[in-house]
Amino acid sequence: MIERLCIVGVGLIGGSLARALRRAGAVGEVVGTSRREEHLRRALELGVVDGWSLDASEAARGADMVVVCTPMGAMEQVFRALRPGLDARAALTDAGSVKQTVFRAARAAFGRVPAFLVPAHPIAGTEHSGVDASFESLYDGRRVILTPGDAADPGAVERVDAMWRAAGAETDRMDAARHDEILASVSHLPHLLAYVLVDLVAAGPGDAFRYAAGGFRDFSRIASSDPVMWRDICLENREAIAARLEAFGARIGDLAEMVRRGDGGALFDRFARAKSARDAYLDDSRRRASPGAGADGSE
Amino acid sequence: MIERLCIVGVGLIGGSLARALRRAGAVGEVVGTSRREEHLRRALELGVVDGWSLDASEAARGADMVVVCTPMGAMEQVFRALRPGLDARAALTDAGSVKQTVFRAARAAFGRVPAFLVPAHPIAGTEHSGVDASFESLYDGRRVILTPGDAADPGAVERVDAMWRAAGAETDRMDAARHDEILASVSHLPHLLAYVLVDLVAAGPGDAFRYAAGGFRDFSRIASSDPVMWRDICLENREAIAARLEAFGARIGDLAEMVRRGDGGALFDRFARAKSARDAYLDDSRRRASPGAGADGSE
Repeated sequence: MIERLCIVGVGLIGGSLARALRRAGAVGEVVGTSRREEHLRRALELGVVDGWSLDASEAARGADMVVVCTPMGAMEQVFRALRPGLDARAALTDAGSVKQTVFRAARAAFGRVPAFLVPAHPIAGTEHSGVDASFESLYDGRRVILTPGDAADPGAVERVDAMWRAAGAETDRMDAARHDEILASVSHLPHLLAYVLVDLVAAGPGDAFRYAAGGFRDFSRIASSDPVMWRDICLENREAIAARLEAFGARIGDLAEMVRRGDGGALFDRFARAKSARDAYLDDSRRRASPGAGADGSE
Repeated sequence: MIERLCIVGVGLIGGSLARALRRAGAVGEVVGTSRREEHLRRALELGVVDGWSLDASEAARGADMVVVCTPMGAMEQVFRALRPGLDARAALTDAGSVKQTVFRAARAAFGRVPAFLVPAHPIAGTEHSGVDASFESLYDGRRVILTPGDAADPGAVERVDAMWRAAGAETDRMDAARHDEILASVSHLPHLLAYVLVDLVAAGPGDAFRYAAGGFRDFSRIASSDPVMWRDICLENREAIAARLEAFGARIGDLAEMVRRGDGGALFDRFARAKSARDAYLDDSRRRASPGAGADGSE
């Protein structure tokens, strides 16, 4: 049970967390903070927060749990702003997509990685942003990866873990570097591909979009995601993302070669291999999904 | 009204067409043909066809409409097999994803492009194959592009057009080369990207798929499509697809560069431009979709 929860950045992610914890009866009071007063007023109106302050340290005062849900680029500044208000018993966590960044930001803001810091990443979201887009079931059946450092306080880790389980998620733990490597493949790369695809089609013959079918629609959905967030993710997970993009580019080059030389055998092998991998992944994710858990399509 | 419809290759595409035309009361008798007897028996069992023959010319005999729904690579051979049975009043059409191929195959099989040939492409499908996956609403609200040649008989063109409208689709007409160029962008390229992405992730750290979220799921869905079909599409639309892959590869290279040098401004601009294009496309497709037409997600 969280007595007082402080959410920094009350948008889709933070707002949905507050709603999910209320649904579970796992939180007492929720206090929001943000740079934009209108966002906080709206969050209060929607009942997502019970109170708010434009001053982050003020909002954090007395909170036993502080969750930072701002774009990655603001992390260090947010940590600095929170610092004076942090309670001795507070656990500090975040919801960012790149975990090594959180350690970098913490080192810069606190001079070291504090024991009360437990970086986490809920693998959930939609292409929409803002508190109006938040909903209590966003995390149901989803994975949240915790990447506590070696010096993390086990009690803080357990409280962050319990919070996400109360919000409906399944939790996992791994090293921050490994997290960033894996997410570069399964999340960051697909988002960037979607942006590039949409941009390429938009640059092509004027009405090509008219003839897009469901494959394109599904594929390009994530290109409607927030450009600031994705810019920050690229900057923060630079090495892993650049490496994945380069590996992808090389495979696209190979494929273009196979197509140019009309190598039907190689094309078939490549496609059949991918289809098997995709079918196996689908079977596996169907097995894992509990009925009605929303694990197959609500993101 | 079609009196006798011959469908060559009774799978998802041909089976759904037969079902849609029956729903509309727009067809008398449906005869199927295929290389695989078990597929034809199953189509008869499901009531998708009224009769069948393993001999294509036999199946075509007396049909006023013949629709070829086989993989592109089989087109020439199918045309040769149909030829002896084709009725004088028959219109001959297909459902292939590459339209210049149909002209090439017709020239090879008939010695010229026959006036009764009206190539067409329904922009609809799912990642499933086979007659068991067919359903009557597959074409509701979807586009079908007709690419009749200069010598096409206007009566045949009109009959093929009317057939697809009866099946629930909206029809368009354009030049075969332009069709192949546009589809390379909005359909062929996304499918190939999905194959490459899934293949790359499968080659990476063992359990990366475990951490895939909705974006990846949506993006990779089409990687479960039939490898034979996609091999044939690559071989048949070789030039346009290779060019699109190369253009995509070049943009991926640019993006990797921007990420490596940490150029946040350029990344933001690129993402914001793509987001605007995607949002505009979505608005446009929502405006076009009639309520309940299934135009936004059933493919």
